[in-house]
Amino acid sequence: MPYGYIGKILRVDLSDSRITVEEPEENFYRRYFGGRALIAYYLLKELQPGIDALGPENILIFAGGVATGVPISGSGRNSVGAKSPLTGGYGDGEVGGFWGAELKRAGFDAIIVKGRAEKPVYLSVADGHGEVRDAAHLWGKETTEAQKAIRDELHDDAVRVAQIGPAGERLVRYACVINDVNRAAGRCGIGAVMGSKRLKAVAVRGHQPVPVKEPEALKRLSQWLLANRDLFQGLHENGTAGGLMALDAAGGLPTRNFMQGSFKGAEAISGQTMRDTILVKRDTCFACAVACKRVVKAESPYDVDPVYGGPEYETCAALGSNCMIDDLKAVARANQVCAANSIDTIAVGTTIAFAMECFEKGILTPKDTDGIELRFGNAEALLQALNLIVARKGIGNLLAEGVARAAEKLGGEAPSLAMHVKGQEVPLHEPRLKHALGLGYAVSPTGADHVHNFHDTAWSQETKLLRDSKTLGILEPLPAQRLDARKTRAFTYFTLWRHFMNSAVLCIFPPWSYSQVAEIIRAATGWDTSIWELLKVGERAANLTRAFNVREGFASGDDDIPDRFFHAFTEGPLAGVAYSREAFLAAKRLYYQMMGWDEETGIPTAAKLHELDLGWVAEELGRHGKP
Amino acid sequence: MPYGYIGKILRVDLSDSRITVEEPEENFYRRYFGGRALIAYYLLKELQPGIDALGPENILIFAGGVATGVPISGSGRNSVGAKSPLTGGYGDGEVGGFWGAELKRAGFDAIIVKGRAEKPVYLSVADGHGEVRDAAHLWGKETTEAQKAIRDELHDDAVRVAQIGPAGERLVRYACVINDVNRAAGRCGIGAVMGSKRLKAVAVRGHQPVPVKEPEALKRLSQWLLANRDLFQGLHENGTAGGLMALDAAGGLPTRNFMQGSFKGAEAISGQTMRDTILVKRDTCFACAVACKRVVKAESPYDVDPVYGGPEYETCAALGSNCMIDDLKAVARANQVCAANSIDTIAVGTTIAFAMECFEKGILTPKDTDGIELRFGNAEALLQALNLIVARKGIGNLLAEGVARAAEKLGGEAPSLAMHVKGQEVPLHEPRLKHALGLGYAVSPTGADHVHNFHDTAWSQETKLLRDSKTLGILEPLPAQRLDARKTRAFTYFTLWRHFMNSAVLCIFPPWSYSQVAEIIRAATGWDTSIWELLKVGERAANLTRAFNVREGFASGDDDIPDRFFHAFTEGPLAGVAYSREAFLAAKRLYYQMMGWDEETGIPTAAKLHELDLGWVAEELGRHGKP
Repeated sequence: MPYGYIGKILRVDLSDSRITVEEPEENFYRRYFGGRALIAYYLLKELQPGIDALGPENILIFAGGVATGVPISGSGRNSVGAKSPLTGGYGDGEVGGFWGAELKRAGFDAIIVKGRAEKPVYLSVADGHGEVRDAAHLWGKETTEAQKAIRDELHDDAVRVAQIGPAGERLVRYACVINDVNRAAGRCGIGAVMGSKRLKAVAVRGHQPVPVKEPEALKRLSQWLLANRDLFQGLHENGTAGGLMALDAAGGLPTRNFMQGSFKGAEAISGQTMRDTILVKRDTCFACAVACKRVVKAESPYDVDPVYGGPEYETCAALGSNCMIDDLKAVARANQVCAANSIDTIAVGTTIAFAMECFEKGILTPKDTDGIELRFGNAEALLQALNLIVARKGIGNLLAEGVARAAEKLGGEAPSLAMHVKGQEVPLHEPRLKHALGLGYAVSPTGADHVHNFHDTAWSQETKLLRDSKTLGILEPLPAQRLDARKTRAFTYFTLWRHFMNSAVLCIFPPWSYSQVAEIIRAATGWDTSIWELLKVGERAANLTRAFNVREGFASGDDDIPDRFFHAFTEGPLAGVAYSREAFLAAKRLYYQMMGWDEETGIPTAAKLHELDLGWVAEELGRHGKP
Repeated sequence: MPYGYIGKILRVDLSDSRITVEEPEENFYRRYFGGRALIAYYLLKELQPGIDALGPENILIFAGGVATGVPISGSGRNSVGAKSPLTGGYGDGEVGGFWGAELKRAGFDAIIVKGRAEKPVYLSVADGHGEVRDAAHLWGKETTEAQKAIRDELHDDAVRVAQIGPAGERLVRYACVINDVNRAAGRCGIGAVMGSKRLKAVAVRGHQPVPVKEPEALKRLSQWLLANRDLFQGLHENGTAGGLMALDAAGGLPTRNFMQGSFKGAEAISGQTMRDTILVKRDTCFACAVACKRVVKAESPYDVDPVYGGPEYETCAALGSNCMIDDLKAVARANQVCAANSIDTIAVGTTIAFAMECFEKGILTPKDTDGIELRFGNAEALLQALNLIVARKGIGNLLAEGVARAAEKLGGEAPSLAMHVKGQEVPLHEPRLKHALGLGYAVSPTGADHVHNFHDTAWSQETKLLRDSKTLGILEPLPAQRLDARKTRAFTYFTLWRHFMNSAVLCIFPPWSYSQVAEIIRAATGWDTSIWELLKVGERAANLTRAFNVREGFASGDDDIPDRFFHAFTEGPLAGVAYSREAFLAAKRLYYQMMGWDEETGIPTAAKLHELDLGWVAEELGRHGKP
């Protein structure tokens, strides 16, 4: 079997435009893979604790993984990471599209950006080289316009662009990084970090196919996927929002800033309605058969340009049900504003829902909102608020700081209405429906996050996920509204897998089994890898990110979720079903122990770090008196 | 993919000859597999702590694993377990041959024997049924004679017999169970348990081929093995004793009761010399291409019957170098006496070496030994002592109790010369050459043991084992004479694997990679298994056995090795190379932590047990106030 994975990392210092190329040894990639583990490695190695996330000392890392860009469904993603301006801890966002694969074709596994440019710049990376270019003329432009300008000036329409829009430039704390103008590395406010560096965009172009060690294996896997279209047909047909009505029926569709679990307007904002109304096309990411992306178009009452794709489930729930908006065109329009300006739809939705609750409770008044009647269900008000956030004007300037900081500023009852963990806005999944998911929000290194979480409902019956999970030793179904030791065990194993997937930067939507993912890695790298090795990469990512947060001063008390989740719904299918803080805290402690972390502090033990071949992290924590 | 592993367990109560058949659900097999994990499961569930290992309350379990008996190299083994009369803790021995495969063909994964027969009996198992039969006429017979008598009376020469000889009947504490008259389930004194139950033999016969879910996969693996004969040619050519001279050259050949690491007579007792002198044939186990077994023949000065096979490495070193005997024919004769009488060659060799040291130091005198000049190098004396042990006569009656009990009875300096851990005699591998191996002796649930241990020398250079181990995430070579955190990590992972192999009851000699073993399990069961799942089965075995020992009162202080190992050799290649108790103790503590055990007591934490889906074990330990 061929052996020898080769990867390169591009280093850019914006303070002097210096560009260098590093070529870490193969075992570096085998230990840290890419994405989350690789980003956390560099953040721990190269940042001083306590630095300002929006200062020049922060570093910004774009990273694929060892299988990014090989011709297989799910391999087109990339991760963008930095110290998060929302949480002050480890931050990353993941995004699909074509940019990640293009970066690999250009010869790089990752780009590490440090410093701050004096004037706006963008980075052009092509076939093994990088160049810092002036972006003064791009600054202030929305994403579509900026992408066109870059492609024009590089004389190449095939250039792939990751960029920020005006919200990133203005340091909206939950600004995201936009690929291909319609995919978002949404979470953690990485777009604000990019803005703080005055880095408008990273344009990449490569002409070398990504080497594959066992192309036949990839072909076999692709054929299997095409022969099993039924496994992803629903996702293809209705997109991620195709499951919205089921969540509503189960009583777990975030509604009215998480005060309710079902929404009368659910069907109106569902993937099925989208299909039947505004959908004009289905779109895909690099090499992917699933094609879960939406392309929507509308003209009145809201103008929606298909270039921006269409809203995902998270967007439909964040800007729809959770704000009680049942107008899909309004949601699609808001989605477009976010894509054009590089705003995380989850964070902004949760923030606006909070503002609406404040408004209805009189914590915010029309005087605060420039007269906007910021009530649940008012789509016009939502769009107005969104535009103010982009512009950082009026109430928008407050809300652009994120729900946690806005609530702190408002004071009084407001913080108890702010749905966030560690400063990151809660995504649109309900812990009262999925009990381990709540634990996942609490212990995620990035604050409330759904991408590497556990969705209990998928484990409570004979789903493909549960059948596949026998491979990990999880042999029986686990009731969704329970958080016992067995659930905690499954949660622990599965979130290690998610941490791995975030390090390999593989998409979770193609219905690959664990074994098939291992085959993909084997085919891409030639390594005789195993699910053990991959889970240990995931565990490395979990420990590196936690070590980063510990060094920044995070403590066990920060691993918590909003109190609202511990109050049972009073109506709907889950009315009266308890999600007890006591069970949550017991599970958290058990999770710490299962992870080999101190059961009180949640700090990784030296033994665990050594077990992961991360002795250097134990030393680093020791230098900072942890534990 | 077909799914549905079916297995049956035969239950025999010798006190009333009652026989029943159980059919545990598939997930039972997926959790506990067979061999060690299955045996430990039943010992924990069905024994009361503190019972006499040689009393009727003990249970005796013969077990294969889920892949036993499928047509692939390494699948012919079985395990025999019980509470050990040597250690008072968990005990098992593993053995090759054909018996294990035959048991599966007879329809059973395991046989559980309880009680004690009033008169000698044997058990006949054939095609789904069992029968307790009179064995009065077999009692006292050597193995070859007894096997012939059983086959004659069952009118079937293809019956496979696992049995004890006279040493087992007389409860020699290190009596073993003999398969096919020439393979030994050697360790832990399980043959004495069998003797205490008055169970002479278990004869099995089956006519149903073992179901295989993916026969083509097994064929491909077999073809790969045959195409890679160079990977096992050495083992085939010279047997396990083929490596004896290399150990001698490295300074790690146990010599003179572990006082020396090299032996002038090494070549004379090596596999190479065996090949060139007394070897008449090479033998194999069920379905195995390796054929590492020896068949030797001699007439003078020692009569050696080829029916008993030939000595393994352990035997050559135990009864050869460690007693300073350089006469291969004498070693082969002693090997025959052990096979005919069911004695563990390792234990008896280490015990006689101890007696020789005592004799030379005047702790034993000719008066104690019936005049035998029990000096190092005296082959005649060794054979005389061996015969006295079998007969439990004179000095033999003392030595039949095992080295730990014999030394205690002698008192004075004697215990410091007794090379054992937890009462089990040290096998023929040298911790001063292989530092993690010493840790392995200490923490093994069965006391000093080599079958599931770590052989540091194989990890210190680019061996196939090290290359394969990248699959577990062990990426770089590890110096043999070091016991740091990295070594402890590799030791921890690898011994989990060995615990798994002892649960699958697969042989470690066919050069299968980790991935290939997973393929074998997949092909045999239809389970989409993974190395993660298999290592967790191994971890389950490690925790079940430790929990059993904890319940029996074992404590951290019992996880120790003889002090002799911490004194550097004064001559030979390892002269002056330190193996420090300090490093050993630090590694032991780190190992406890890496295992999720209390770092002080070595007791599995409840969290670790829950992580392994062994909540019932946490409850059981809790009932006994542990921790």
